[in-house]
Amino acid sequence: VSTVLLFFFAGKLSVTSSMHAVRVNGFPCKDPMAFPGLNTLGISLARIDYGPLGVNTPHIHPRATELLTVLEGTLYLGFVTSNPNRLFSRVVKKGDVFVFPKAMIHFQMNLAHDKPAAALSSLSSQNPGVISIANAVFGSNPPISDDVLATAFQVEKKLIDWLQSQFWENNHY
Amino acid sequence: VSTVLLFFFAGKLSVTSSMHAVRVNGFPCKDPMAFPGLNTLGISLARIDYGPLGVNTPHIHPRATELLTVLEGTLYLGFVTSNPNRLFSRVVKKGDVFVFPKAMIHFQMNLAHDKPAAALSSLSSQNPGVISIANAVFGSNPPISDDVLATAFQVEKKLIDWLQSQFWENNHY
Amino acid sequence: VSTVLLFFFAGKLSVTSSMHAVRVNGFPCKDPMAFPGLNTLGISLARIDYGPLGVNTPHIHPRATELLTVLEGTLYLGFVTSNPNRLFSRVVKKGDVFVFPKAMIHFQMNLAHDKPAAALSSLSSQNPGVISIANAVFGSNPPISDDVLATAFQVEKKLIDWLQSQFWENNHY
Amino acid sequence: VSTVLLFFFAGKLSVTSSMHAVRVNGFPCKDPMAFPGLNTLGISLARIDYGPLGVNTPHIHPRATELLTVLEGTLYLGFVTSNPNRLFSRVVKKGDVFVFPKAMIHFQMNLAHDKPAAALSSLSSQNPGVISIANAVFGSNPPISDDVLATAFQVEKKLIDWLQSQFWENNHY
Amino acid sequence: VSTVLLFFFAGKLSVTSSMHAVRVNGFPCKDPMAFPGLNTLGISLARIDYGPLGVNTPHIHPRATELLTVLEGTLYLGFVTSNPNRLFSRVVKKGDVFVFPKAMIHFQMNLAHDKPAAALSSLSSQNPGVISIANAVFGSNPPISDDVLATAFQVEKKLIDWLQSQFWENNHY
Amino acid sequence: VSTVLLFFFAGKLSVTSSMHAVRVNGFPCKDPMAFPGLNTLGISLARIDYGPLGVNTPHIHPRATELLTVLEGTLYLGFVTSNPNRLFSRVVKKGDVFVFPKAMIHFQMNLAHDKPAAALSSLSSQNPGVISIANAVFGSNPPISDDVLATAFQVEKKLIDWLQSQFWENNHY
Repeated sequence: VSTVLLFFFAGKLSVTSSMHAVRVNGFPCKDPMAFPGLNTLGISLARIDYGPLGVNTPHIHPRATELLTVLEGTLYLGFVTSNPNRLFSRVVKKGDVFVFPKAMIHFQMNLAHDKPAAALSSLSSQNPGVISIANAVFGSNPPISDDVLATAFQVEKKLIDWLQSQFWENNHY
Repeated sequence: VSTVLLFFFAGKLSVTSSMHAVRVNGFPCKDPMAFPGLNTLGISLARIDYGPLGVNTPHIHPRATELLTVLEGTLYLGFVTSNPNRLFSRVVKKGDVFVFPKAMIHFQMNLAHDKPAAALSSLSSQNPGVISIANAVFGSNPPISDDVLATAFQVEKKLIDWLQSQFWENNHY
Repeated sequence: VSTVLLFFFAGKLSVTSSMHAVRVNGFPCKDPMAFPGLNTLGISLARIDYGPLGVNTPHIHPRATELLTVLEGTLYLGFVTSNPNRLFSRVVKKGDVFVFPKAMIHFQMNLAHDKPAAALSSLSSQNPGVISIANAVFGSNPPISDDVLATAFQVEKKLIDWLQSQFWENNHY
Repeated sequence: VSTVLLFFFAGKLSVTSSMHAVRVNGFPCKDPMAFPGLNTLGISLARIDYGPLGVNTPHIHPRATELLTVLEGTLYLGFVTSNPNRLFSRVVKKGDVFVFPKAMIHFQMNLAHDKPAAALSSLSSQNPGVISIANAVFGSNPPISDDVLATAFQVEKKLIDWLQSQFWENNHY
Repeated sequence: VSTVLLFFFAGKLSVTSSMHAVRVNGFPCKDPMAFPGLNTLGISLARIDYGPLGVNTPHIHPRATELLTVLEGTLYLGFVTSNPNRLFSRVVKKGDVFVFPKAMIHFQMNLAHDKPAAALSSLSSQNPGVISIANAVFGSNPPISDDVLATAFQVEKKLIDWLQSQFWENNHY
Repeated sequence: VSTVLLFFFAGKLSVTSSMHAVRVNGFPCKDPMAFPGLNTLGISLARIDYGPLGVNTPHIHPRATELLTVLEGTLYLGFVTSNPNRLFSRVVKKGDVFVFPKAMIHFQMNLAHDKPAAALSSLSSQNPGVISIANAVFGSNPPISDDVLATAFQVEKKLIDWLQSQFWENNHY
């Protein structure tokens, strides 16, 4: 391929009427094969599509601060600080920017029940990493002992067992 | 005070028959007032006491790898990798060492129902930080919208509301 | 102010029919007063507006890689590697992303003579810095000796003197 | 082997009645083969056994701060700052913690003439390095010119020659 | 070869009556083959020879601060800050030291029309990099569009075309 | 003062017939008051003068690699690696360059008994630090217990006591 293509990614900004709850796509910048020019340069980018009422569930990027710019729609979003556990949340609309500091638990939700939303996510690392909280805790393989989780979440082991039997899928960025 | 005391901390290694589920104490090294000589030196230390069946619930240190050395008793411990969500767990006893890589969700539990346990935790940062998963998600102030959490944990909003109404206390390191 | 506002910036994504050649605006993220939540977090953001045929002239960000996402219009853009001096350039359109590696000379130009263009610039530093090449070389105060510049640019000193007498304004990011 | 073993090391905390002056053992964490899970994680651990009156002679870890926790016995220990050469020393006992800042000359000595002692050493680097002062200066191969050392230590060359003829062995961590 | 040679470079400090405008030589420290002991150690060195009225044209080291010590002769030198574009310049002579901060545009010129000059350049990186401004802007391959450069330098495209047709050679450090 | 002076230091390269054994002078670059422009820039410089047979005694720079360029005379110099303790030494003359890797014990000696020598030292840190081995070990205040040093150096305590009673002065860089 022409070398300049290493530094180029042909993305899309128009929002499709997705039926997915949430889909991270557009700019797979952290994949060195898809966007080789970014390798080792300390930044990456993703477009996030939200279906109606779609939720990007609570997660952590252990190695990156995230700047989210709303491209379309209205989102409810926030993050929780670590000590004490204070929530910073806000409803944001097209053109707004919100910062999720490195390694804080954060989430977004499309507030509209009848149309999609979209955002552009800039991350301060080529390889930000992602830990999806509910999936990691209840969907690990093999499962964490239900004794540990029953104590942690202050519920009956029966409920933990039921939660661990659900289907968990990693779907965010 | 004599300057040499800046570099010294008088701790204890003997295990008390704690009634607490889990208590982190002994070496408050990350507190610059308690152990000033450690300031900016990139390492800290804690002693963790576990009551019978005590659980140090799933949490993350966003800025530190942890090396846990068992001082007394038998622990079940583990961590979950981020992608995929694989659990690495093991039962360890006095003298054993286990590593929790930076920013991974991890936990420990005292397996004995009749005696305490203790461990020494070495952390690769003066200020490792701690995010207690269940507490941050369900105990934040103000609470995260139950719409977001019901989707994330795949349960009814009623259960989320009940969980958010419990008492959540930060008690680990 | 409410603390959550520290992490929020109300920006605009709609392109105004600017008469300016180029204007960097929208998200003054590197200004700690305007967007305090970003302070020390290692990333910043800017929106760039291009008038018809507007040029963001060759410049360097010494401390940041830049990811440019085209919001509107068609741009000719590129960067020059340092050794040898190879140009990587391309015509890009809405939704495309291009990477300018840290500390490389780069530029953009709106190819349309009748409508504006806009881009969103993500930078891998809170304080990326900018050195505008022509302005720094010919517009410094006091001026660089014309002996030096005549040798460097392989032209008569008279031309250097004329260039140094022009009006130079720093206008990019 | 099972992958979880990569993150596990089976050590011992009980003190053997060693006849060695000093032996560093227990947790060879800096060896990637012995404890692969620690690789690149920025921390390591060692257990140090001291025979009666055993001395861990003055040495430097160029890449790590050390936190020493006394497991058994009573130690005299200290470090020398670089400018001016001030000694910070103290007698410490079981449970006490002392910090040796990065790259400072430091030492420990078991004060008991009739029983062993032991300590757990946490180091803020996977590969702290060690320079044993007396061994490096007098035991190098080939030897440093005695002209240089006679001037440095303000003694006769004859004494330097005698010192260089002794047997020097690297035995600490 | 004997291993000690890895850490040694046989250079020259005597100034030859060079006919070159400027020649960087003496200590090719950034070349791992020529001076292997320097590899990864974070510093490098160069000797710069200036013919009569020789100019080391404006350039940038993106990854290093430079400390220039005058070995012989009288130099006019300076650097331009980035915001605003302020010139710091001075005439310096044998024994003087001047600092060019990282990533600032800087230059030197031998003021004597009848004798050579020389300097020793210490750089705070093993691989400082160099961007020769005029060469990168006008001598890139392929050339930057003359529309962009005419706007940047506020001159006719004809002049840009003429400049781009000259011979450009990278000759500094 | 004029701001350009912040980036300038008026030094000397001519060697004076010093009666001092060794004197580090010329460019007190690590002193922010003497050379403010260097502050935080990650490099420093010193000129070292050696009287006849003058010795820069074994020492360590914990935070810097050193590149030594011989300005005048003939030096015997070397460093000792840490594990094993291997000596890399060489006789070098005017124009030669030698590298002392970060945190290794190193030294230089003027081999001429009738004339001075001089060298220019480039260090890869604004604040390299210096630990003078013999001075730190035998000249600390208060003194290290002679029990520790007698064991470390394998000599009688009487000799240690005598060494500790000498006059120790920090005189290198």
